[in-house]
Amino acid sequence: MESKSCAARSTAVTKDRPDATFRSDAADLVTQLSPTPKTKPDVVDFGTVFTDHMLTVEWNANEGWQSPLIRPFGNLSLHPACSALHYGVQLFEGLKVYRGNDGRLRLFRPILNMSRMAKSAERACLPAFDQSELLECIRRLIEIDQDWVPHSDSAGLYIRPTFIGTEPSLGVRKPAHALLYVILCHAGSYFDTEVRALSLWADPKYTRAWKGGTGDCKMGGNYGGTLFAQYEAGSCGCQQVLWLYGEDHQITEAGTMNIFLHWINEDGDEELATPPLDGIILPGVTRLSILELTKKWEEVKVSERYVTMGQLCSALQQQRLMEMFGSGTACRICPVGSVVYQGKHLELPCQEKHSLSSRIATELADIQVSRLTRARTIATSTF
Amino acid sequence: MESKSCAARSTAVTKDRPDATFRSDAADLVTQLSPTPKTKPDVVDFGTVFTDHMLTVEWNANEGWQSPLIRPFGNLSLHPACSALHYGVQLFEGLKVYRGNDGRLRLFRPILNMSRMAKSAERACLPAFDQSELLECIRRLIEIDQDWVPHSDSAGLYIRPTFIGTEPSLGVRKPAHALLYVILCHAGSYFDTEVRALSLWADPKYTRAWKGGTGDCKMGGNYGGTLFAQYEAGSCGCQQVLWLYGEDHQITEAGTMNIFLHWINEDGDEELATPPLDGIILPGVTRLSILELTKKWEEVKVSERYVTMGQLCSALQQQRLMEMFGSGTACRICPVGSVVYQGKHLELPCQEKHSLSSRIATELADIQVSRLTRARTIATSTF
Repeated sequence: MESKSCAARSTAVTKDRPDATFRSDAADLVTQLSPTPKTKPDVVDFGTVFTDHMLTVEWNANEGWQSPLIRPFGNLSLHPACSALHYGVQLFEGLKVYRGNDGRLRLFRPILNMSRMAKSAERACLPAFDQSELLECIRRLIEIDQDWVPHSDSAGLYIRPTFIGTEPSLGVRKPAHALLYVILCHAGSYFDTEVRALSLWADPKYTRAWKGGTGDCKMGGNYGGTLFAQYEAGSCGCQQVLWLYGEDHQITEAGTMNIFLHWINEDGDEELATPPLDGIILPGVTRLSILELTKKWEEVKVSERYVTMGQLCSALQQQRLMEMFGSGTACRICPVGSVVYQGKHLELPCQEKHSLSSRIATELADIQVSRLTRARTIATSTF
Repeated sequence: MESKSCAARSTAVTKDRPDATFRSDAADLVTQLSPTPKTKPDVVDFGTVFTDHMLTVEWNANEGWQSPLIRPFGNLSLHPACSALHYGVQLFEGLKVYRGNDGRLRLFRPILNMSRMAKSAERACLPAFDQSELLECIRRLIEIDQDWVPHSDSAGLYIRPTFIGTEPSLGVRKPAHALLYVILCHAGSYFDTEVRALSLWADPKYTRAWKGGTGDCKMGGNYGGTLFAQYEAGSCGCQQVLWLYGEDHQITEAGTMNIFLHWINEDGDEELATPPLDGIILPGVTRLSILELTKKWEEVKVSERYVTMGQLCSALQQQRLMEMFGSGTACRICPVGSVVYQGKHLELPCQEKHSLSSRIATELADIQVSRLTRARTIATSTF
C-alpha cells in the first residue's frame, strides 16, 4: 500500500519524480511497427475498426511510469483478478483528429481531454500523469497511423485514451499497478440510424448519476449502468434515454451526450440553456465549445441552468421551444425530434436548416478542419 | 445487434435455447490440469494468492454459450476496446467453501449467489445463464483444487465468479460477446489490521448508490467509485466509509458491508435493525442469513428499517445502542468501534463476548463448518 494521499495525485509533477511522469523522450518511446498493416474499410459503425498500432504505458507503485510503447494493435494480457475487471477501476477519454483542407492533421482541443482525464484519474485513485507528455505520445501514435485519418470535410479519426487498474488482487483498494493505453478507430456513424433527429425516452425510474458519485468523470461504471435503461428506451420505440434528476425531473443528459435547449425562457428571453456542472454532468469538450462560441456571438442569452421536464412541457405548449439538441465528441451535434414522458409523446420542433444547432455544427466543423482563418478558431493543436 | 429485449434475459432458460445455457455435461466440461501446481502459502492478505485452476465460459450472441473450460490459472487475453474495460460491463459474486469437521467441503448458500448473479447480469445487459449448471461447474473446479480449502474451524476458500462484456467495439450497447469466469483464492484477513472493531468515517459528500442506479447489484462501478472516499476516510484516521443517503443522513452500508444496529429503539423495544432492500442496498447473503437466524431465535425485534445518523446519535447519548456491526462474505461479522461524523468522534459500545454479533458469528461459523446438526442449519450444499 502506498503512503501518499490521493489528493497529491491531482497535480502534474516533474520528471524527477519517478512515479508520476512518462519518460516520453524520443529515446524512451519505443516503437514496434506492425508487419501486417490492415486494409482500411470505407464505411463502418463507430468504434468497430481499429488502426494498426496502439500506445501502452505501464505504471506500478514501486517503479512509477515505464517507457511508453507504440506497438502493433492487439489484445491485452490481464490478470483475471485485476481491479479494472472487478471494481470498475477504469476511465477513458474520447477526442478526434481531423484532416484539414490544407492537408494538415489537427486535434480538437486535446488539452481539455488531457485535463479531464487527469481529473478522472484522481477520482478513480489511479496515478497522476504528465498531460503534455501523454499528448506528445498520442501525437506520435497518430503520426504513425496518419493514413487512417479520413479525407473528409467533417469526419475525423476517433482517439480513445484508456486508463485501467491492473492490481492483481481482490481487495477493494487503490491499485498499485495500472495501464494507460490509447487506441484509434474509425468514427463512422455513431447512431444506428441515419435519422437526423433523435427520439428520447424520459423516465425518472433510472438515474444516470448523482451528487457524491462519479457522473462528472469519464469512469466506465457511469456507462455500463445505463445499458438497461437504453434498451428499455428501445422497447418504447426511442433511441436514447433523456436522463432526469430529482423530484422535479431536471433534464441532465441524453444518452451519452450533454443536452442543450434553445428557447424563449420563462422571462421572455431567447436563451440557449444547458445544465450547470454541479457534479452530475459530464464536462463535455463540445459542450464547453458550444458555450464559448455562442457567448462570443452575443446573439442569445447563454446559460448554465437547470431546466425541468415541467418547464420543457410548458415551453412546448406555449410554442416557446425552438429546439433541443445533444452534443458530444462521438455524435457531434444531434437534434432531438421527440421525447416520450409520462405516457405522452412530445414532438419537438426540429428544423433542418437555419437552426442554431446547424449553425453551431457548421462552425465547429469549420474549426475542426480549419476552414476558418486562425483568428476565428478555438485553439487547436496542429502537427 | 440482438433483437431480444433485456427483459427476456431474467429467466433461466432450457437447454434447447443455445444462447442461454452452459453445456456443462461431463462430456462438455473440458478440463486441462496445470502441470505446475503452486506451493500453498500459510497466511496471506485477502484475494492475493489464487489456486492452480480457473473456470472460463465464453458466450456470443450468434452461437450462445460455449463449452465450459477448467484450465490452469492464468492471464486473460482481452481486446483493448472490450466493454468490460471501457463501460464497466462487469459484475462479480463472492462466496466461500468451508471444510467441515467431518472433512467434507460445503458451500455456504451458493444458490443465493447464483440468483443474485443472474439479477446483476440482467441489470448489466449480460446474457442469462443456467444457475445450477454454473454451480455444478464451480463444484467441479473446487473438487480439482480441493487441497486449497483450509483445514480450519472458521476460514474458507473464497470463490469469485466474474462476468464481463467482451464486445470488441466502442459503441455503448449491449455486448454481443461475454466471458464468465471463476477464480478461487485464499480468503486471508480482509482488513489490514487485526483490530477487532472498525473505525468508520461518515460524510454525506460522497454517495455510494442512488435510487435508479445499480447499488443493489454487484457491478464493478459500485466499487471503483468508492476508493476515493475510502482514502479520505483513511486520511481522517478511519478504516472504512459509513455510507449515508439523503438529507436525513440515513445509514446504508459500511465499506463493502451491510450494516446492522442492535439497540433499544425509539419505542423502547430491543431491536436488530438493518436498512431495507429499497434499491440502494446490496442484498447480502450474510445479511439475509443474519435476519433469518435472529428472527428464528425470537428474542429481539428484527427489522428492515431506516436509521438516520440523528437517531444513532440520540441512541448513543441515551445509552440505547448495544452495538453496530457490518456483515459480508469476505469480512464475515465485523463490529464497529467508532464513527467520525460532523467533526465528532463517536465511540460505540463494543463487547468482545456475549454480544449479539459474536453469537451470530459463532452460529454462522458453526453452520458453515457443519458443527451443528442438520436440523438446525441453514441449507448448505455438500460435496
